[in-house]
Parts: sequence; C-alpha cells; structure tokens
Amino acid sequence: MASFRHLLYHNTDMETIKRLAVLGSTGSIGRQTLEVIRALPDQFRIVGLAAGHNMDLLAEQIAEFKPKFISYQDKKAHLPDTENEFLSLEEMACHPQVDTVLIATSGYSGLSPTLAAVKAGKNVALANKESLVAAGEIIVSEAKRNAAQILPVDSEHSAIWQCVRGERQKVKQIILTASGGPFRHHSPSRLAEVTVEQALKHPSWQMGNKVTIDSATLMNKGLEVIEAHWLFDMPYENIRVIIHPQSIIHSMVEFIDGSVKAQLSCPDMRLPIQYALSYPERLANPQLPRLDWSTTSSLTFEQPDLDAFPCLQVAIKAGEKGGSYPAVLCAADEVAVDLFLSRSIKFTDIADLVEETLQQHHDIAHPTLEEIIAADAWAREKVLQLTSRDYP
Amino acid sequence: MASFRHLLYHNTDMETIKRLAVLGSTGSIGRQTLEVIRALPDQFRIVGLAAGHNMDLLAEQIAEFKPKFISYQDKKAHLPDTENEFLSLEEMACHPQVDTVLIATSGYSGLSPTLAAVKAGKNVALANKESLVAAGEIIVSEAKRNAAQILPVDSEHSAIWQCVRGERQKVKQIILTASGGPFRHHSPSRLAEVTVEQALKHPSWQMGNKVTIDSATLMNKGLEVIEAHWLFDMPYENIRVIIHPQSIIHSMVEFIDGSVKAQLSCPDMRLPIQYALSYPERLANPQLPRLDWSTTSSLTFEQPDLDAFPCLQVAIKAGEKGGSYPAVLCAADEVAVDLFLSRSIKFTDIADLVEETLQQHHDIAHPTLEEIIAADAWAREKVLQLTSRDYP
Repeated sequence: MASFRHLLYHNTDMETIKRLAVLGSTGSIGRQTLEVIRALPDQFRIVGLAAGHNMDLLAEQIAEFKPKFISYQDKKAHLPDTENEFLSLEEMACHPQVDTVLIATSGYSGLSPTLAAVKAGKNVALANKESLVAAGEIIVSEAKRNAAQILPVDSEHSAIWQCVRGERQKVKQIILTASGGPFRHHSPSRLAEVTVEQALKHPSWQMGNKVTIDSATLMNKGLEVIEAHWLFDMPYENIRVIIHPQSIIHSMVEFIDGSVKAQLSCPDMRLPIQYALSYPERLANPQLPRLDWSTTSSLTFEQPDLDAFPCLQVAIKAGEKGGSYPAVLCAADEVAVDLFLSRSIKFTDIADLVEETLQQHHDIAHPTLEEIIAADAWAREKVLQLTSRDYP
Repeated sequence: MASFRHLLYHNTDMETIKRLAVLGSTGSIGRQTLEVIRALPDQFRIVGLAAGHNMDLLAEQIAEFKPKFISYQDKKAHLPDTENEFLSLEEMACHPQVDTVLIATSGYSGLSPTLAAVKAGKNVALANKESLVAAGEIIVSEAKRNAAQILPVDSEHSAIWQCVRGERQKVKQIILTASGGPFRHHSPSRLAEVTVEQALKHPSWQMGNKVTIDSATLMNKGLEVIEAHWLFDMPYENIRVIIHPQSIIHSMVEFIDGSVKAQLSCPDMRLPIQYALSYPERLANPQLPRLDWSTTSSLTFEQPDLDAFPCLQVAIKAGEKGGSYPAVLCAADEVAVDLFLSRSIKFTDIADLVEETLQQHHDIAHPTLEEIIAADAWAREKVLQLTSRDYP
C-alpha cells in the first residue's frame, strides 16, 4: 500500500505567518507565487528571493517584498545597495528563518537546494519536477529521515494530493490527465515540421518555455508519471495517463472500492501554488478564478497517441528501469529542448535524441548524488555528441 | 462555516465485525445492500432484517442471513417457524446489539425508525431521504445530542461526503448533479402526455418506482437539495444543481480557494451503500464495477430547465421556507406520485398538485414531531381533495 506520510504537514499552527523563500522568483511559477503572496499579505512573509539572470525584475521584487535574504546567478549583476544578505541557493533553502521553501528554478538547478531544504526538515513546495525525477529515491528518503514535507506544486500532483486528503491510502490507480498539447491530433510526419513558435503556443496553460515544449512532446507527462511514482509511493503500473484537452480535471485517484475522486479548477497555476503554501488550510483568494458551470459544457477524454508522441513511453520506461536512467532522461531532454528552441534540431528529434542517449547509458542502480550528477553530465555531453554526428 | 461533525465516525475499531440492521431489506436499496454484505462476509453481520409486504423474499433473506431480529408490516403474513425475534422497526433501530442501521424504507415510513436510531446514538446509513427532508432539524439536532452518525447513502450525498473527507469545512458551494431523467429535452406540452411506462424508464439508474418518478420530475433533486442542506449544514444559496446526463460525476464540492473536488463512479448504488457501511475504511469488492477510461469519452453538463421541471424550484422554495413546508412537500409528492402511477393524474399534474398544496398550507415554524406528522396527514388529505375537485 502506498504511504503518504511524507505528504503530511505537521505544523498546524496557523496563527503564525509562514516565512517563505522563493527560489526562481523571476520565472513563471515564481512570479505567480508572488501574486498569491501579494493577495494574501496576512498569511505569508517573503524572507528570501532567488533569481537567475533577470536582475531588473529581481530588483523590483526586492523593493516590494523586502526579503532578508537574496540570491542570484548573474555574477556581474549590480543591485542597488540594500540591506539584504546574499546567500547561496542551498544556504537559503535550509536557513533557520525559513519555514517553507518554494523551489521553482528550472531544470537541473533545483536538485541541490531541494536536497538542502529536505535535509533541513523544511516544508518544500516543489515546482521543479526534474530534481524529483533525477533523484527521487534520495530526496524521498531524506525527506522521511528529516521529517521534511514535500508539497507538490505541479497542478496534476496537487490534484492527486487533494484527492487523497483524509483518505487511508487505499489507492488502486492514479489517473494523470494531460492536455495533449498543441499538436494533439498531428501525424508523426506533420510533427516533424512544427516550428518553435507553434510549439510554444500551449492551448490551455501559460508556462515557461522548457515545460511548454515538454508538454507538446508529452515528455512533461512522462516526467510527471515518475514524479507521481515518488511523491505517492505508487508503482508505475498503477499510474495511467489520459488526454483531457480542456485541462479542467487536473488528475484523478481511483480507490480500491472503485470510487474515483477528481480535482477540477480553471487552468491557473496560482491555485496549486497557493494550496501548497496554505496547506493544510484553504484560503479564500478573490483573484483566483472560479469554474463557471454555466459555460463548462463538456469534459472529454481520449487515449494518448503513443506513436506520435514517443516521449511519454520513453520517460515511463526510464522511470521503471530506475537507477540513473531518470537522471539521464532529464538531462538529455533538457539539452534536446534547448537545441530545438535554438532551431538546431527538429521537434521530432527530441524524442530520438533522448531515446538514443538512454540506450547508450550504462545504468547505475541506487546512484549516489555524485553518480546522478555524473550521469547528468554524461547525458548532456552525449546529446551534443549525437547531434554533431547526426544533425551537423 | 458548515460543520460536518455529525458525519464523523467515532468507532474506528475495524477488527470487529459490524452488526447491521437493514430496514427495507426487500426494496431496491435493501436488496443491493444484501449484495454488498454477501460479497464481504467477513466485514458485516446481519442482525436485523425488516420488510414491508414482500414476504417471499424476506423469507429467503432470513434463510440466508439468519438475522436475530426480524420485522414486517404484513399483519396476515405467516413465516416458517424460525428462532427470529419479531421487533417493531423502532425497536430494531435502537437495539443494543445493532451497530449500524441502514434505513431504506420508502417515503414517510423511514422517519420514526430514523429518529429511534439517532436517539440511540447509532450509526445511521440513511437511504430514506424523506425523513431528513420532513424532519431535518429534529434529526440533525438529535444526532448531535446523542453522538449518532448519519452516513449518507444517496449517491449524490455520498459523493459530497467523500469530497469533504479530510477537509476543514471551507466549502463555498455544493454542486449536486442530476441525470435529468428520461424527459430531459421535453417541452412542457410533451411532458403532459408522458405515460407511466415512459416515466419508469430511467436512463442511467435502476431504482424503486417512487424515486424513479421523482427523478423524472426533478422533484428528487429538489429533495436532495434539502437533504444536502441538513447533512452538510449548507445554506440553500450555496447549493447548485447541474444536469449531467452520464451520471458519472455524482456530485462536486467547491472550496473557498476555487478548487473543486468531484466523485466519479459507474452509476451503481452498491458503491455508496458500501462506502456508508465500511466508512471510514474503503474495501475492495470485485463485484463493484470500475470506470473504464478507454470508453469514457465525454462528460457533459447543462442547466436544468426550470420551466419544464417546476418541481425542482418548488422543492427548493419549500426547503428555504422551512418549518412544516418540507413535510408538506414530501407528503404531497408521495400522494401525487401514487396518483400518477395509478394513472389517475397526468405527469405534469404532480408539480401542480404539490405546489397548490404548499400554497394552501399554514406554516408551523420549528415544528415538533407531532406537528410534522399532522402536517403530513393534512397534505395527503389536501392532495386527494384537490384531485377529486380538479381531476374528477
């Protein structure tokens, strides 16, 4: 039976304002997180903000939220003189003055601060799926050992988490919904010709570039299957993916008695962000949209087209094999998506490159963090090597 | 804020077999209850069976389940000599050897044993909605006073109950789904001509005659709104009805943050029956159907047609007015449905008769049980009187 213990939140003292660090504050999830905080000023205080290279926006955020701690990657950046203390991502993630760390850095960069937060027993609101995919075994076992709480921020995992709330772990099946992306009924040959601009136009969600391309290839859904495996301690054969183009049902859980619970809402990331931050409370936020039942007339479902979108199965197989394969999957995909975004490869090359990289990988069972980092580096190099050979 | 305290189940000792009394064992819900018990013999023991007039089936059930206590209405009945003890419905409902009472008698006859069970602090699995509609204030306050648990058996209320499980009462809106019945897109003039046979053909549920006709008029949904008001302590303006012809989503709950939870399953009453009996556990039962996501392609929603189906608003208005009106509503509807089934009145006369009866009623605020019984009797008489005048 699945165990959700690492999802249980111990601190139920809601009188205290929660002190948050937002890692990746200038990205899509980071900005939406600050919108939630802005709408609920009595509930949260921003004590840390960390960004990559968007220094203008970071400076604005610092002026507005007056965090005690800041962090940024841009070594040449000059911020106006402030009294903020500069910390590394890892220092911020485990600082004693931080209650909850929201990790919304993109790709691989979330791994190290996630581990630091988990080891410090923090509440970790995790929007960065790659760290859980690459190092799920380490993160979940460290979370258990240190009584850290992992609070899912992905809309699908937030939906599952809401559906299992108050239940006694009698889950038969997790049903992850997928919008199907912008190319839902495209044939493989049509897919080979899609442009970056087309791939970046997601029909229902506003997201960062990497996750938008991953949504178009269905790689994103494969990564989410692996994420669900770790978050909910669920065997892969009990996780199912179903296409639901309206993105209203964010996922479902079937219990052993055949009863299914679904979580529905407008496709707006601020709800799962807020739920992770406010849990175990729910907070009224007039800025969050409500479903309009006078216009919601049909919710549809179809099976994913595994021939046209091989990334889904490639990812699930990497997850099932385990070991260092998921780290290789993540790294290879990150590089392949970058190559597509820079117009160096075709849309359909993403799946081929990731699959070829996985095939050439020599697995390490139960890898250490160092071995995961090494597998990641190997995979990045391998994709570039394959590209220079096949896509000169 | 709504309080669900009377829905919390205190006895979590699942090692003990639960001892059940089934009131109305030969009706549709009663028979399906015994199917559940038959599939899960290690979980439950039948200690009491009560039926109305179907003595052949009751004799079979007694032979199979060997209950200690039996009850039946048919005064002239002769059962084979057995060692069962004959009790009244009320005696059975409050007997010390009974843990859970499932009340599946039809219409008004459920009120008195429901009150007896609630006063005895039993777990009361309530399939009889009329008693809660007619005497909701008395039943809920007695349940609170005696720490009795009311376990909803109606599929809609079971769905709501499952959706609020583990939540902290932050409900914004209850969304009751309705199949719309067999006459969903009929015009009022076409409705006047429908036959008893047509009205008894429900598109998705197998149920008893009374509730099938109530489903066709939407009176059933109106009664369920009143039931939800009492079960979940929810103001009427926060309960919404939406037509969902597939009967897959059995109801939904919107929380204050805009998140909506829905409960889905095949339309089969055995699931909500089993959930009420097994709560707080969920039990695997291979006989219960599972939703098939390879064939579930569309869930649709539409607004109820209040002109064609006036019973819905008539019932909700009676609930909002409160006092003795809901008792009059129930009684008038029961008689009007009987008159339709005996082909004495038209389908559309049901709404007119119930509405006219309510209009002629002199309300009693916070009625006692005696006053509810008197209002019930007055309403039955009034419908017959109106019928003999207008439909001679």
